[in-house]
Amino acid sequence: MRFHVSGRLEYNVRFPSTMIFNVHAQRSPGQTILHERFTVEPDLHFEEFVIDSGGSRFVRLETGKKKMLQLSYEATVETSCEVVPANKLDYTPVADMDRRAIPYLFPSRYCQSDRLGRLAWDLFGKVANPYEKVIAVVDWIHENVEYLRGSTNSETSAYDTVTQRTGVCRDFAHLGIALCRALNIPARYFSGYAFQLEPPDFHACFECYLGGRWLVFDATRLVPLNGLIRIGTGRDAADAAVSSIFGRVQSTLMQVDCQLAPGQKFTPLERKQLGRKGISLDAKHATSTH
Amino acid sequence: MRFHVSGRLEYNVRFPSTMIFNVHAQRSPGQTILHERFTVEPDLHFEEFVIDSGGSRFVRLETGKKKMLQLSYEATVETSCEVVPANKLDYTPVADMDRRAIPYLFPSRYCQSDRLGRLAWDLFGKVANPYEKVIAVVDWIHENVEYLRGSTNSETSAYDTVTQRTGVCRDFAHLGIALCRALNIPARYFSGYAFQLEPPDFHACFECYLGGRWLVFDATRLVPLNGLIRIGTGRDAADAAVSSIFGRVQSTLMQVDCQLAPGQKFTPLERKQLGRKGISLDAKHATSTH
Amino acid sequence: MRFHVSGRLEYNVRFPSTMIFNVHAQRSPGQTILHERFTVEPDLHFEEFVIDSGGSRFVRLETGKKKMLQLSYEATVETSCEVVPANKLDYTPVADMDRRAIPYLFPSRYCQSDRLGRLAWDLFGKVANPYEKVIAVVDWIHENVEYLRGSTNSETSAYDTVTQRTGVCRDFAHLGIALCRALNIPARYFSGYAFQLEPPDFHACFECYLGGRWLVFDATRLVPLNGLIRIGTGRDAADAAVSSIFGRVQSTLMQVDCQLAPGQKFTPLERKQLGRKGISLDAKHATSTH
Amino acid sequence: MRFHVSGRLEYNVRFPSTMIFNVHAQRSPGQTILHERFTVEPDLHFEEFVIDSGGSRFVRLETGKKKMLQLSYEATVETSCEVVPANKLDYTPVADMDRRAIPYLFPSRYCQSDRLGRLAWDLFGKVANPYEKVIAVVDWIHENVEYLRGSTNSETSAYDTVTQRTGVCRDFAHLGIALCRALNIPARYFSGYAFQLEPPDFHACFECYLGGRWLVFDATRLVPLNGLIRIGTGRDAADAAVSSIFGRVQSTLMQVDCQLAPGQKFTPLERKQLGRKGISLDAKHATSTH
Repeated sequence: MRFHVSGRLEYNVRFPSTMIFNVHAQRSPGQTILHERFTVEPDLHFEEFVIDSGGSRFVRLETGKKKMLQLSYEATVETSCEVVPANKLDYTPVADMDRRAIPYLFPSRYCQSDRLGRLAWDLFGKVANPYEKVIAVVDWIHENVEYLRGSTNSETSAYDTVTQRTGVCRDFAHLGIALCRALNIPARYFSGYAFQLEPPDFHACFECYLGGRWLVFDATRLVPLNGLIRIGTGRDAADAAVSSIFGRVQSTLMQVDCQLAPGQKFTPLERKQLGRKGISLDAKHATSTH
Repeated sequence: MRFHVSGRLEYNVRFPSTMIFNVHAQRSPGQTILHERFTVEPDLHFEEFVIDSGGSRFVRLETGKKKMLQLSYEATVETSCEVVPANKLDYTPVADMDRRAIPYLFPSRYCQSDRLGRLAWDLFGKVANPYEKVIAVVDWIHENVEYLRGSTNSETSAYDTVTQRTGVCRDFAHLGIALCRALNIPARYFSGYAFQLEPPDFHACFECYLGGRWLVFDATRLVPLNGLIRIGTGRDAADAAVSSIFGRVQSTLMQVDCQLAPGQKFTPLERKQLGRKGISLDAKHATSTH
Repeated sequence: MRFHVSGRLEYNVRFPSTMIFNVHAQRSPGQTILHERFTVEPDLHFEEFVIDSGGSRFVRLETGKKKMLQLSYEATVETSCEVVPANKLDYTPVADMDRRAIPYLFPSRYCQSDRLGRLAWDLFGKVANPYEKVIAVVDWIHENVEYLRGSTNSETSAYDTVTQRTGVCRDFAHLGIALCRALNIPARYFSGYAFQLEPPDFHACFECYLGGRWLVFDATRLVPLNGLIRIGTGRDAADAAVSSIFGRVQSTLMQVDCQLAPGQKFTPLERKQLGRKGISLDAKHATSTH
Repeated sequence: MRFHVSGRLEYNVRFPSTMIFNVHAQRSPGQTILHERFTVEPDLHFEEFVIDSGGSRFVRLETGKKKMLQLSYEATVETSCEVVPANKLDYTPVADMDRRAIPYLFPSRYCQSDRLGRLAWDLFGKVANPYEKVIAVVDWIHENVEYLRGSTNSETSAYDTVTQRTGVCRDFAHLGIALCRALNIPARYFSGYAFQLEPPDFHACFECYLGGRWLVFDATRLVPLNGLIRIGTGRDAADAAVSSIFGRVQSTLMQVDCQLAPGQKFTPLERKQLGRKGISLDAKHATSTH
């Protein structure tokens, strides 16, 4: 599936600052960047880099004495998601899992899995199959947490959301991650562009490590999973923030868009169709299944 | 300097569990393992691995149906720490720092730097030099937090310690890390063996990234910094736990020892002697300065 | 029903301190003190007083330079609890309720009802009858929170317990109070002596204001409700602590006992028998129903 | 001093609700209501009452099916504040204090004095005189917490403010109360009208019990203390909220005013003038000192 995505960010710079952006679509087995353009105005030196093998692409720059900053990213991205059948979704014992998945078992700033253990096992412990455990987590969040714009802030964590029961996509993701980690299933934060998200914005959901691969889940159910374009992954939103500011800068505009590329036809993948199948955004052979 | 370290851990296994241990001394530029022996009883298959370039060494094993577990690690380690003069301790702007240091700027489970920003800048913002900023943080913690065994637990975080003002080495480290990150200085958790620690135990302190290298700091002031042998580093204690248990296992014994190797003579490095110099445990050329 | 209760408290005094005790059985419509004796050793001046119309009886004393302190309370108490039929258990609208009940609608230190509103209404909002709402709260706590000695401390609050799902009687009470207040039902903390509590100790549960009177509830289900002897009530444990210490004093002994008076025969009131009836410990006419 | 105060509140009623208001000026030794008028539109039955001896006056009403609600309060109030000389500001030992002050020693929803003990004694323990202890608390808050509109919400408590270091009058008051209670000084929340407050609004500060009376303190330093007209007191904002809503109601307007009555001349009392004197708003003999 081919998408055209774009993000436009504008800032007032109060004080010379360093900024780190994570808005580029990932380069990964399931995602090919056909075209992209990243511009900064005024013309500032910037550096693009990746931190680890996860593939998230960052840009950092120093504002110097500039007073205003405009960033623009646009890309055409070919994505292919893989529908993984039930018999490949077995639990991977901690003893066997890819060692790179292990850090995603540990608690993080917004996902205090260590404090949610008893609740997670009480609620989901009886579901034997690990994939269905995650589905049960996603369903529970969807039924018990209300999506309510403005109800949370940048300090809200899974420990709050599990009780306060409102939030936005970021909070839904954090709670999903925390509950899965509490169940010994590695889980990581996913930030991305999302087709059919209304109103258009950056989106967040989460991925779990099952059967030796990362599968994507979204407790908000706001968008079809095969319309996601991955930007970043990390332990939680602290790792995959659209922008991290070291200094004093004020956001004045954030404009996001995600469209089908010309000539494409999109069939949303619905949970019902999937049945007990999962969705991986890292389709191994880049053969788009949709 | 040559040390002989050992750790002995015993567990009752209530339920077949997976365990991850982080007790091996790191292999790093400043640390050479001259000899080591790791045994598990009863005889179980285990795997040793590293997760990332940080060098922390993990062991994972499955208990299966064994009821008891005894682990024993002992090693002779040659360490060399480098005293870094003031003129090499400049602040590394976020824009220039090694990208691998960047994750250590973000908040983590026990180090909520995002919530400590105003306090950190109020207390330490006026100290211009970044190295002296960290020293001011360390001094402040030492003066304002009381070392009190049993006053905290595994859920205690820097956000608590900054107000409750008691803790153990782990809490001192978390608070130091959180305050440094709030000041835009990358900081990571350090776990290790420590010479002259009374009573003998695993120790924790923290490292900051300054002038392009990691320097070690310890707000507890319980041990000389040149008597530290590094086991693990990570964002906080969640990454560098001596043992992570996935299942049900009860610790019944933890015995730690750290001695000088025969024929060695130890001169503790004292803060006063150091003046404005810092200490790195990654002495580049393995030429022991002490 | 006639009980003989006693409490013995011993302290090491580190520093001249003021102490406030709340160990005397209340004098109330449903409780008559037939005999009591309160002694302090060494012989210190103390004052007995009540703070408000609630009837809790406090003792305060200054230790002066005494090094040790022994308190002893024993009493024979006649209690009468009233079984209140369903048709008298209607919800009292806030607009009609006794104004003295109003403060028990507000959040307090350990009962953050303001943060539990959405969860409380999600879980219990569909239960129309207010008495059955409280019963549903009590059942939910009993089923979802595990009674686990040592799992909590003096800082643990309902906001923690609702997620962490372990606690002791005090935590069960706080969670019940917080959920009821969130449902606009006044609820207060109850501390007392309890017949058949094993091991013997002070006990805590809670009371709700329904149908114009206070009914008693206990989510721990550790003791029969007609074996309770009320000591104190308050917003939460902060108001009804057995001892409040202003200074430095260390508890060295706490010994509690509750026996039937000679010749009495006790028939425990069981929830099943009660059906939709409630229990008030303020039987209006002092005619013991049991 | 004679003031004319007024408050106007408007609400959209989403669902039949009960509301409790606390906007009437207190009747107390230091405050005489010369004239007042309270109206509700549409014409609804309401009840005025006091809960306890504190003197706070509440109104409760049921909205029934009304869709909009307008409340208006206006009053002319004669206040007299007493400047209390230093020699009357001794600490009242817990053992001697008015028993009605005792509940104000205990922690409450927004004032977790139990968690601030060590910090409070570290910061202020060396100040021997209790009045000067409170002044030191007030000065510390004023210097370390920034008044920042919108930086906090209805869940923010003293435990947060002491670290996050921003807030509004309510947060300044809660922190002052929590620190004083931690120092064994009874402290209560004060809500009122305030002359010269810009922009006009309800104001909050706190009172401490010293030398057998309640003295008023304000860490915001936004208004002269002799321009305060007391509405309510309580353990914290939970007890003295302008409005408490049981149901679903949305505030659409809040308009507050406080003017000098005609012919009055106001001389602000400044901290510097006061020196070591305190201010009580309960001038015993109603002889206005200003």
